[in-house]
Amino acid sequence: MKPQVGIIMGSDSDLPVMEQAATLLQTFEIPFELTIVSAHRTPERMSDYAATAEERGLKIIIAGAGGAAHLPGMIASQTILPVIGVPIKSSNSIDGWDSVLSILQMPNGVPVATVALNAAKNAAILAVEILAIGNETIAAQLKNFKTNMKNEVLEKAEKIKKDGWKNLYD
Amino acid sequence: MKPQVGIIMGSDSDLPVMEQAATLLQTFEIPFELTIVSAHRTPERMSDYAATAEERGLKIIIAGAGGAAHLPGMIASQTILPVIGVPIKSSNSIDGWDSVLSILQMPNGVPVATVALNAAKNAAILAVEILAIGNETIAAQLKNFKTNMKNEVLEKAEKIKKDGWKNLYD
Amino acid sequence: MKPQVGIIMGSDSDLPVMEQAATLLQTFEIPFELTIVSAHRTPERMSDYAATAEERGLKIIIAGAGGAAHLPGMIASQTILPVIGVPIKSSNSIDGWDSVLSILQMPNGVPVATVALNAAKNAAILAVEILAIGNETIAAQLKNFKTNMKNEVLEKAEKIKKDGWKNLYD
Amino acid sequence: MKPQVGIIMGSDSDLPVMEQAATLLQTFEIPFELTIVSAHRTPERMSDYAATAEERGLKIIIAGAGGAAHLPGMIASQTILPVIGVPIKSSNSIDGWDSVLSILQMPNGVPVATVALNAAKNAAILAVEILAIGNETIAAQLKNFKTNMKNEVLEKAEKIKKDGWKNLYD
Amino acid sequence: MKPQVGIIMGSDSDLPVMEQAATLLQTFEIPFELTIVSAHRTPERMSDYAATAEERGLKIIIAGAGGAAHLPGMIASQTILPVIGVPIKSSNSIDGWDSVLSILQMPNGVPVATVALNAAKNAAILAVEILAIGNETIAAQLKNFKTNMKNEVLEKAEKIKKDGWKNLYD
Amino acid sequence: MKPQVGIIMGSDSDLPVMEQAATLLQTFEIPFELTIVSAHRTPERMSDYAATAEERGLKIIIAGAGGAAHLPGMIASQTILPVIGVPIKSSNSIDGWDSVLSILQMPNGVPVATVALNAAKNAAILAVEILAIGNETIAAQLKNFKTNMKNEVLEKAEKIKKDGWKNLYD
Amino acid sequence: MKPQVGIIMGSDSDLPVMEQAATLLQTFEIPFELTIVSAHRTPERMSDYAATAEERGLKIIIAGAGGAAHLPGMIASQTILPVIGVPIKSSNSIDGWDSVLSILQMPNGVPVATVALNAAKNAAILAVEILAIGNETIAAQLKNFKTNMKNEVLEKAEKIKKDGWKNLYD
Amino acid sequence: MKPQVGIIMGSDSDLPVMEQAATLLQTFEIPFELTIVSAHRTPERMSDYAATAEERGLKIIIAGAGGAAHLPGMIASQTILPVIGVPIKSSNSIDGWDSVLSILQMPNGVPVATVALNAAKNAAILAVEILAIGNETIAAQLKNFKTNMKNEVLEKAEKIKKDGWKNLYD
Repeated sequence: MKPQVGIIMGSDSDLPVMEQAATLLQTFEIPFELTIVSAHRTPERMSDYAATAEERGLKIIIAGAGGAAHLPGMIASQTILPVIGVPIKSSNSIDGWDSVLSILQMPNGVPVATVALNAAKNAAILAVEILAIGNETIAAQLKNFKTNMKNEVLEKAEKIKKDGWKNLYD
Repeated sequence: MKPQVGIIMGSDSDLPVMEQAATLLQTFEIPFELTIVSAHRTPERMSDYAATAEERGLKIIIAGAGGAAHLPGMIASQTILPVIGVPIKSSNSIDGWDSVLSILQMPNGVPVATVALNAAKNAAILAVEILAIGNETIAAQLKNFKTNMKNEVLEKAEKIKKDGWKNLYD
Repeated sequence: MKPQVGIIMGSDSDLPVMEQAATLLQTFEIPFELTIVSAHRTPERMSDYAATAEERGLKIIIAGAGGAAHLPGMIASQTILPVIGVPIKSSNSIDGWDSVLSILQMPNGVPVATVALNAAKNAAILAVEILAIGNETIAAQLKNFKTNMKNEVLEKAEKIKKDGWKNLYD
Repeated sequence: MKPQVGIIMGSDSDLPVMEQAATLLQTFEIPFELTIVSAHRTPERMSDYAATAEERGLKIIIAGAGGAAHLPGMIASQTILPVIGVPIKSSNSIDGWDSVLSILQMPNGVPVATVALNAAKNAAILAVEILAIGNETIAAQLKNFKTNMKNEVLEKAEKIKKDGWKNLYD
Repeated sequence: MKPQVGIIMGSDSDLPVMEQAATLLQTFEIPFELTIVSAHRTPERMSDYAATAEERGLKIIIAGAGGAAHLPGMIASQTILPVIGVPIKSSNSIDGWDSVLSILQMPNGVPVATVALNAAKNAAILAVEILAIGNETIAAQLKNFKTNMKNEVLEKAEKIKKDGWKNLYD
Repeated sequence: MKPQVGIIMGSDSDLPVMEQAATLLQTFEIPFELTIVSAHRTPERMSDYAATAEERGLKIIIAGAGGAAHLPGMIASQTILPVIGVPIKSSNSIDGWDSVLSILQMPNGVPVATVALNAAKNAAILAVEILAIGNETIAAQLKNFKTNMKNEVLEKAEKIKKDGWKNLYD
Repeated sequence: MKPQVGIIMGSDSDLPVMEQAATLLQTFEIPFELTIVSAHRTPERMSDYAATAEERGLKIIIAGAGGAAHLPGMIASQTILPVIGVPIKSSNSIDGWDSVLSILQMPNGVPVATVALNAAKNAAILAVEILAIGNETIAAQLKNFKTNMKNEVLEKAEKIKKDGWKNLYD
Repeated sequence: MKPQVGIIMGSDSDLPVMEQAATLLQTFEIPFELTIVSAHRTPERMSDYAATAEERGLKIIIAGAGGAAHLPGMIASQTILPVIGVPIKSSNSIDGWDSVLSILQMPNGVPVATVALNAAKNAAILAVEILAIGNETIAAQLKNFKTNMKNEVLEKAEKIKKDGWKNLYD
């Protein structure tokens, strides 16, 4: 089945963060592709990726990058697909502020849907939410996902009630 | 026609920023609704809004708030619709950092698609991009929108070439 | 005896910080309850918790959360009990700034009594101070607590005087 | 009637912010006193104020200060009454960060209940919430206050519904 | 004479800052070109600009941009010419931090020579310093420029000595 | 009488801040000199100033500068006199953070006694405190100065007591 | 011999930083005292310390503290001796910003001579510089200290020249 | 062959970062020199270095420093050669912000070409780009360097395509 979501990242060092997006999409059985596209080292490849994304059937692009993170914004400038940006706290980053601001503060006309620092999993959930619009199967999966999150909290609360907070991790 | 996008904000003082989202959606002829929903002053109304959004036919929610901006995230916690968050630099905000971080840094499981500070227009464009998935009419509009943006730049560049940069604003 | 203080936190990963509040309250023999309430994963549970807090006899709520920390503020929006907020420096937090600002910068009408980053112990002391208003027993305990703090400093100062600063930890 | 809340501030230049606390307390008919106590220019006066606060019948102290704001914390070190700190964005402040951090980041043992930058009104509401513990009259007032806040939002939402968002301020 | 320096900016709203670079280059009689190239609205034009810069005879590119400022870094990724980046404090910028970090924090392999916020004049001086390598005429101009700066300070110091500091601006 | 304090600043645009140091020293009848010394535009003059300061009879140097403020630290590197640094919030400063950090964060071996942003008056008071060591006349003046500060607060507190806080500025 | 410098700190956990001040003063054979004085846990002791400092023969006070660091400023408010403040990056500090701003941003009238984060050694050197005013022996020691610092750099530079930079640490 | 690039740093503790510049220049066979020059401990040596740089045949100076990093700016004030500044995140730095701002925020007239935190390698690449102006051999090397960077990305992308992202590091 054709990939609906493209997951790209600026460097293979971003993979430990970005693979959380892939894993989440697998859980939802959303077909996706994952590759490395560097805004600064492979600008042509980036332009090609953005230019062909729509015709290749992609519906959403998730782009992660660290430091002066230009990948999400530059992809967004070259496609009409929604682009979800994942700021990554790379080594030599100034505490992640650089990637957060480089991705978030896009000028009028070219938005990037930014998620929290290193939150590749949330980027994938956001992609699933978008795909769930008018798709009852995925919508049902998402509701189930939310219920599971709730139940995990309830179970832990129940465990504290039963065993006491001092024994939570015994 | 039923609204497809819900625009909400925490206070009527956010309207000068948030109405830019409304204006943009009007340009694209996307039906929307706009109202005030305060996370802190009307928490029940907020829960109702989120709980009924999907069944009322909304596809996307754009939520703007300033300071300790909880509205976008709390809406996202109570619906499976994608929520786009607009941080607003309100009075007594600490330079906007509070609203940016309160909206962006959502925990795993509950993403908010955050746009730049005060970027309500970009929130609307992002909503249009999402609606354009599999909708050729809107997709064509978006391509047209991008072309227009490009042409504005080209015209200004042409004007500088012709009249000189010293005379740009004469 | 009925709990007077409710200690809640957004995730069980916050327990190592928040249990310091519990321990302090035990020292003062203040009955309390402790559980997990997630603003984003269990919003209904949160609303129920806030709505029933007063009638269940709680007098103060201590709420800790990290990242986009909405729990303290959302609880405060749904009860008239004083809410003490504990910003927690969770993993992927941006150095704790996100939780500090998400808790502190509440809008007019809905205060959260914010304490320092990770300062769950201080949240509990603040709760004791509130309970001590018009309660001579607790007031006496607090004065004793302050005296003990003072004496610890004096003892260390005395030790330095006697043994010399080079030998403080020998 | 004897004052129950003491409102103090480091300088008369803080009065335009701090008088919002006084006004709020008047609305709730809580007797209070208001004066200037400078940690750095009148340290003895500050110690006297803190030392006599409890015996003079005060139940809560609201202290506002800007810059290196030591007043709230130093008062808290010399009384067992709960101290609510109001960070003030004074001239030459570094965007308010100095007063926020000087008040919030108190060490273990000596909490200050910190509210948002310039949020003297919220400090007073927090004081009222504390006084409402076990006081049904004040509790009822607070519930009324919350209802009024809610109604203001609902009225504005209604107005938008009726008149349209474009006409909100016409 | 063929331009040696290309001055580009993301938007015509950047011109009031960037024209200071042009004026400085005119003083040094360095031929330059100035135009608008938007990374996000005209990405192809940007690629063309970068790709043809060297063959058109440009030696240095000065690029200014605000917010999520991708122009300098993306130009640098597509040319081997040195790129000087000017962070611009645009409206809705978060105090300029976004443009500073988006330009400065480039990844290994693709440097941008970043100057201070809004320092287009310094960008031009840096360009002149580069052109002065092995060019005695420009080197002499630069030395003269430095002497003039020194003399301005000395004259003001002399004026204070003669007239007194109280009368400096009388 | 020979100047005991040297007041220097990087630019004549710093004079409106730095003249507050001069005025304070005049009040204490401390002889001083004031001039402009630019670290970046007149580095030799700066070295001369530092190298001759001690032999010319100066006892303390107060140095103010904005942006990348190198003047205080570079003076400190070339004299054994204590150097008091005044960070100045100049135009194009990033909210004063640049000058604060450039002056404060000196490496081991070369301290600068840093005062608050724009606090030239405090720099002068610090200089007076240093000169008061072992000088009973100046010490008495300083005690008088502190008493006056205290009395100003007490008078304002008295005025509030008498006239009410609502009438403070009537 | 009577101590000339008082070294105080808010907690014994500050000793690993503050003992660097003591060691430096020992090198210069400046008699000093060192003890723990907590602004928040022993406010009376702090007032006594400040009030008696001058009569006990102290000439300078070095005060170190972390978090909401009130010790240096509160000491300065109660003595005319120069106070040197050392911001300490304690655990749960927000990256040291809290202690830096709490010490640096003192209001007009009450300066604290602030040094870099954790720079207790520099605080001591600053104290020595102050004591060297009009004391030729100490002045000579300081000049010697500066020469030694210079020589260490020159030796390392020489070593690099001789052995090559690749072998610096072989 | 005479060195064309001077690499200097404020302390030998900066060498692990700065040697990356040396290694890069070796790859390009650019002759360089490397030594330690401390602005604060060897100010005369610094002035000599800057004053003689041009006549000794240097074309570019790369200067790295941490904390209150004055070396790059002070060198720039005393030569007309382009100076590339490398902010270094040293111990006791406030997360690198101090060195970034001390180097970047230079006043008008004296630019420093600042690169990212710890980005000594990029400083060297920038130097090579400058030397490549009008030098076809170096220009060709740079194009080759860019091609290699691109190919590394393509190879990793190919490897992911072939082996799957889960196996990238197996």
